[in-house]
Amino acid sequence: MTEAIDYARYDRIRPIRWNGESLELLDQRKLPFVEEYMRCAGSDAVAMAIRELVVRGAPAIGIAAAWGVVLAARTVEAADGAAAAAVLEPALQRLNAARPTAVNLAWALARMRAALLIAGDDWRAVLEREAQAIETEDLAANRRMGELGAALIAPGSGVLTHCNTGSLATAGFGTALGVIRAGVAQGRIGKVFADETRPWMQGSRLTVWELQQDGIDATLIADSAASHLLKNGEVEWVVVGADRICANGDVANKIGTYQLAISARFHGKKVMVVAPSSTVDMATPSGDAIEIEERDPGELLGVNGGRTVAEGVRAWNPVFDVTPAALIDAIVTEKGVVERPDAEAMRALFGG
Amino acid sequence: MTEAIDYARYDRIRPIRWNGESLELLDQRKLPFVEEYMRCAGSDAVAMAIRELVVRGAPAIGIAAAWGVVLAARTVEAADGAAAAAVLEPALQRLNAARPTAVNLAWALARMRAALLIAGDDWRAVLEREAQAIETEDLAANRRMGELGAALIAPGSGVLTHCNTGSLATAGFGTALGVIRAGVAQGRIGKVFADETRPWMQGSRLTVWELQQDGIDATLIADSAASHLLKNGEVEWVVVGADRICANGDVANKIGTYQLAISARFHGKKVMVVAPSSTVDMATPSGDAIEIEERDPGELLGVNGGRTVAEGVRAWNPVFDVTPAALIDAIVTEKGVVERPDAEAMRALFGG
Repeated sequence: MTEAIDYARYDRIRPIRWNGESLELLDQRKLPFVEEYMRCAGSDAVAMAIRELVVRGAPAIGIAAAWGVVLAARTVEAADGAAAAAVLEPALQRLNAARPTAVNLAWALARMRAALLIAGDDWRAVLEREAQAIETEDLAANRRMGELGAALIAPGSGVLTHCNTGSLATAGFGTALGVIRAGVAQGRIGKVFADETRPWMQGSRLTVWELQQDGIDATLIADSAASHLLKNGEVEWVVVGADRICANGDVANKIGTYQLAISARFHGKKVMVVAPSSTVDMATPSGDAIEIEERDPGELLGVNGGRTVAEGVRAWNPVFDVTPAALIDAIVTEKGVVERPDAEAMRALFGG
Repeated sequence: MTEAIDYARYDRIRPIRWNGESLELLDQRKLPFVEEYMRCAGSDAVAMAIRELVVRGAPAIGIAAAWGVVLAARTVEAADGAAAAAVLEPALQRLNAARPTAVNLAWALARMRAALLIAGDDWRAVLEREAQAIETEDLAANRRMGELGAALIAPGSGVLTHCNTGSLATAGFGTALGVIRAGVAQGRIGKVFADETRPWMQGSRLTVWELQQDGIDATLIADSAASHLLKNGEVEWVVVGADRICANGDVANKIGTYQLAISARFHGKKVMVVAPSSTVDMATPSGDAIEIEERDPGELLGVNGGRTVAEGVRAWNPVFDVTPAALIDAIVTEKGVVERPDAEAMRALFGG
C-alpha cells in the first residue's frame, strides 16, 4: 500500500499565479537569490517571458501560454468563440513561436483554440476556465506521476536528476522531481543527486533550491561527474523529464539527458522519464523527426554575467538531445507507465 | 610519409620562460583576457605560483619547480653538489609540497636532486643544465607524441578534447592538444571541438584560447553536449591527456574523461590518451588502486566570482575519474603507442 504524501510539505512552490487580472511569473532568471514575480499584463509579455526563460519547463510554458491567450482575449471584441478564434490567431501564433522544442506549448494552445471554437458569447469565460483546467490538471497529473514513478523505485535507492523538472517547470510538484519528492516522502529514496546542467545551470540554480525548500537533502555534482557517480554505486535510477516523447518512445529532453542514459545503461542503472501525457506526440514517429533547438552560443561564453571565453571563439549550443527508447526503462505519465518503451507499448497506452 | 609540421606556426605559446636571471610564468589565472607573465626571483615565489595555479598542468609544474631549484641555488654557498643538495633540501621540500598530488613535480625534483648529488664544484651549472634538459625533453616528447598520435587519425576526421592539455600545461605544444595541433598541421583533422570542463573551465578559458593563438578553428561545447555531438557523426576521435596511467592501461584523468570514453564506445568512436611516459606508473596495477582527489565543493557553488547556488546546498567535487583500459583505443607516449591497451601490451612497451 502506498503511503500518503504530505503535499503541504512537499508541494509549496508555484511558478505561475493568475490573479484574475494579470499573470504573475516567478522570474527563474533571478533564482535562487531573488524570489520575484514578473507581472505580465498582455499575451506578448507572456511570449517574451517564455522566450527569455522567465518561465521555463515544458508544462509550465504550456500553462503560461494558456493564460497568455486569456490576456490576449482582453484586447479584442468578438460575438462568439469562432469569431474570437479568428482574431486571436495571430496572438496564438506568437505565443507558439516563443520556444520550438517543447510540444506542451503547442498542445496547450491547441486546447485553448479548440475550447474557443465551440464557445458561444461566453467565450471569454470559457477561455479562462480552460486555462485554469490546464493548470489544475497539470498539478493533478504530477501528483499521480509522483506516485506511479515512486512505486518503481526500490526502498533505499539513490537517484540522479538532470535539469529542473520540479514545481518551477510545472503547475507545481513537478514531473521527475515530483517522483523524487514522492519517493523521498515515502522513504523509498535515500539519496538525491542533481547535476549542474550547463549552460543555464537549472540544476545548480533551481533544482537544489527547490529541494532545499522542501527540506530534501540533495548533492550537486558537475555534469561530467555523473558517470563517476554511477560507477560508485550510490545511484539506482536516473530520473528525468521530457520535452517531447515520440510514438516509438524516443525522448527529447534537456541536453545531457542522452549522455546520462548511455552511462546509466553502461553501469546497469535504470532510466525513468516522467512527463504528462501532453508531452507524448504520437504524430512524431521517432526522435529523428525532432528539431533540436539551438540557443545563443553566448550562453557558453560566459557565466554569471562574466565572460569566460576569449573573443572570437565559436560555440555550439544545442539545448536538447534525443534519448532513444532502447535506453529508457520506464516512461511515467499520469495515464500510466510504459516499461521498456517501444512503438507497440506506446500505442497500447496512448492509442494512435 | 608524415608531412612536416610548421612549428613556427603551431608551437608559439610558452608558459614558462627562463631569462637567465629569473623565471617568468604566464599567469593562467588571468587568461584568456590578460596575457601577463609573473616574474619569480626565488624558489618560494615559484612554489607559491604552483600552489596558486599561476602555472598548472602536470608537466609544466615539474618544469617550473626545476627552475625553482636553480633559483634556490643562488641563495646558498656550497663546495660541491652533495653539500649543495643538503642545504637546498628544505627548498626542494617546499617546492614539492606546493601541489602534493602532482606526480611530475616529485619526478622533476628527484631528477634535480640526483643531478646535484653527482656534481662537483660546477653544481650551479649542472642544476641549470638539468632544468633546461627537463624543459627541452618535455617539448621534444610532446612533438614526438604529436606525430605518433596524428598518424592514427584518418584524414578529414573531427576530434573532441577535454580539459587543457596544451602548451599551457607543458613546456610547449602539449600532449593531447599537441596531437590535435599536429593533426591540423598535417591536414588530417578537419574539425576540433573542446568541451568546457567544469568546474574549472579549462576548456573554455585555456584550450580554445590556445587554439585561437595558432589560428586553429575550434568549437566550444557544454560538457553534456558531447554525446549529442558524437551521435551526429562529426567526431571520430576523443583525444585526452592523463594524470596517471596504470600498469593495465587504466587512465586517471580530469573528471568527465570516463563519461566521454563511455559515450565514444557507445557511438563506435575512438579514444586516444596522450601523455609522456613519466605519467605511466607501472607500480599501480589498475585504476581501482587510485585514490580520486576531491576538491573544494565551493568550485561548484559559483562561477566567475559569482555564486550560482543557494546557501546551504551540498556539492560533491571529485576532480579526476578512471577510464578503464577497455574503453581506450590508443595510449600515445613519446616511447611509442599502445593500441588496445592491457597489462601485456603495457608491459611490452614500458617493462616492469
